[in-house]
Order: sequence, then C-alpha cells, then structure tokens
Amino acid sequence: MKAFQDNYPDSLAHCYGCGANNPAGHHFRTFWEGDGTITRFTPQSQHTAIPGFVYGGLIASLIDCHSTGSASAAAAREQGVELTPETTPRFVTASLRVDYIRPTPMGKELVVRGVFEEVKEKKVVVVSEMTVDGELCATGRVVCVKLPENWGS
Amino acid sequence: MKAFQDNYPDSLAHCYGCGANNPAGHHFRTFWEGDGTITRFTPQSQHTAIPGFVYGGLIASLIDCHSTGSASAAAAREQGVELTPETTPRFVTASLRVDYIRPTPMGKELVVRGVFEEVKEKKVVVVSEMTVDGELCATGRVVCVKLPENWGS
Repeated sequence: MKAFQDNYPDSLAHCYGCGANNPAGHHFRTFWEGDGTITRFTPQSQHTAIPGFVYGGLIASLIDCHSTGSASAAAAREQGVELTPETTPRFVTASLRVDYIRPTPMGKELVVRGVFEEVKEKKVVVVSEMTVDGELCATGRVVCVKLPENWGS
Repeated sequence: MKAFQDNYPDSLAHCYGCGANNPAGHHFRTFWEGDGTITRFTPQSQHTAIPGFVYGGLIASLIDCHSTGSASAAAAREQGVELTPETTPRFVTASLRVDYIRPTPMGKELVVRGVFEEVKEKKVVVVSEMTVDGELCATGRVVCVKLPENWGS
C-alpha cells in the first residue's frame, strides 16, 4: 500500500524523517485510517533517552512527519486532488508541540493517530495521539503550511 | 571544557541526542554563556528536510537536549550544587514547543541560546532561540521535569 510520503515528488523526498530518497532516514510512512491518519514505527536500539525508554526527539520527529504527511493528504482530499508525485501538495512545519504524557518504552511499536483541527489550502492543523500497547504516551499538535509550488525548481 | 551533559552519570548518559555513551547519537553539548546557555551543532548531510534545508525533527531534538541540559545546570546552580556525575540532577522533557521562523540552511552551524523562564527544584522552563549566521530560524519553549533520584537504580 502506498503511503502519503510515497507520493512526494522525487525532488522533495529527501526528508530525514520520511523521505524515500534518504537512505539514512527513518522512513516514517503515513496512511488513512477512516477520516484520520496513522503512522506506525518501531524505534531502533540507538533511539534511547534514559535506558529502556524512547528518545523524545525521535517522538517529536515521528509526530512531525506524521503531521506534514497527513496535511498533504487532507489538503489534496479537500480539493478533490488525487495523491500523485505530480499533484501532491508538500507541507512543512510552522509550529510543533509535543506533550510527553508518560515514558515511552523501547522495543515496542509506536502508533500515532491524527485528526484534523483545520484544513485549508495552505494551512492544516493536525492533532495526534501516540500510543504504545494502547497506552497514551504523547500528544502532538502541529501547524503545517504549504510549500510554495515553485520551491526548489 | 566540560559540557553539562558530560556530568550525567554513566547509567543515564545514553540519550540519542546528547548522551556520551551513545555512539550513534548526536552528542549535543551545552554550556553556560553568561546567565544563559548555549549549544552549537552542525548537522550532517543526511539531516535534510527539503534539499538544502535542515530537518525540523533534528532542530526539535537539538532544542530538546539543549533545554534538558540547561535545566540540569540551572537547578544545580539554584541549589548551590556543583555539576558532577554524583550530584547532577537529570531532567527530562514534559512539553516541547518549537516554532520554525524560517527555513534553516544546511552546511552551517546552528546556535541555540537559552534563558530561564522558571527554575524550581523539580521543574525548569527554558526558552530558546536558534540562529544561523545571526539570523533567527527557530524558537523553543521546553518544560523540563526532574527525573526521580532512584530512577534506573
């Protein structure tokens, strides 16, 4: 199944978090789940904070790319545009907030689910919850803005 | 010169962002600069967002570890405690907010400077600005809380 990020054009797919063209990156991948979105990721052993628990910066990165990917898909859907490398609007982060509710255990899959607080053509706000084994570990609120269409060309 | 993070006890120095005992990590290092704190870091080529610009998740990670390190030093100073592996209080992140003011160019040193909004024994709030060549690229506000002293023992 194609993730939202698989539809980023090649010239804009180098993100360390979610770019298919970044061999050293995390390759976060986001999908629809009903009217919301979902990203699953299992950290590697080096992504430690305090031993046994996941690094908060990785959690922030995961929520970040989950949100910009979700923004891309939601903005396209709102305008009736299919997600293809030629049509996918590319969003970037204007503001990121993550609240860490409880320490996130290592060795488990992190599941981030997002819903939309606002969907406009050039601005999308994504609110997310990150759970592990069904337990809420972090919440996120990300304001995403659309990259100008002539960016990088 | 010893960074704040060099005084974390060995059992709590594995952080992917700033732990001396994490060979795969970023090794962010934070110091006093007057009454504030400073962390300098030059991203590697893989830490890309859109080509030519730094990944927002790395910036969030940098501001995160800069802030918890700063919290540690400020809480110790407030109590007249010297920073040593035996005495350094270890802080973790309760809430992280990063605002991205302008795209951060690759290939340059990122400079984060922090000041303290609040310093209590178990809670420190750090407000930071990240500049590149003197231009403001991002701001951060991080609420740090003290790890219980018997953690991990």
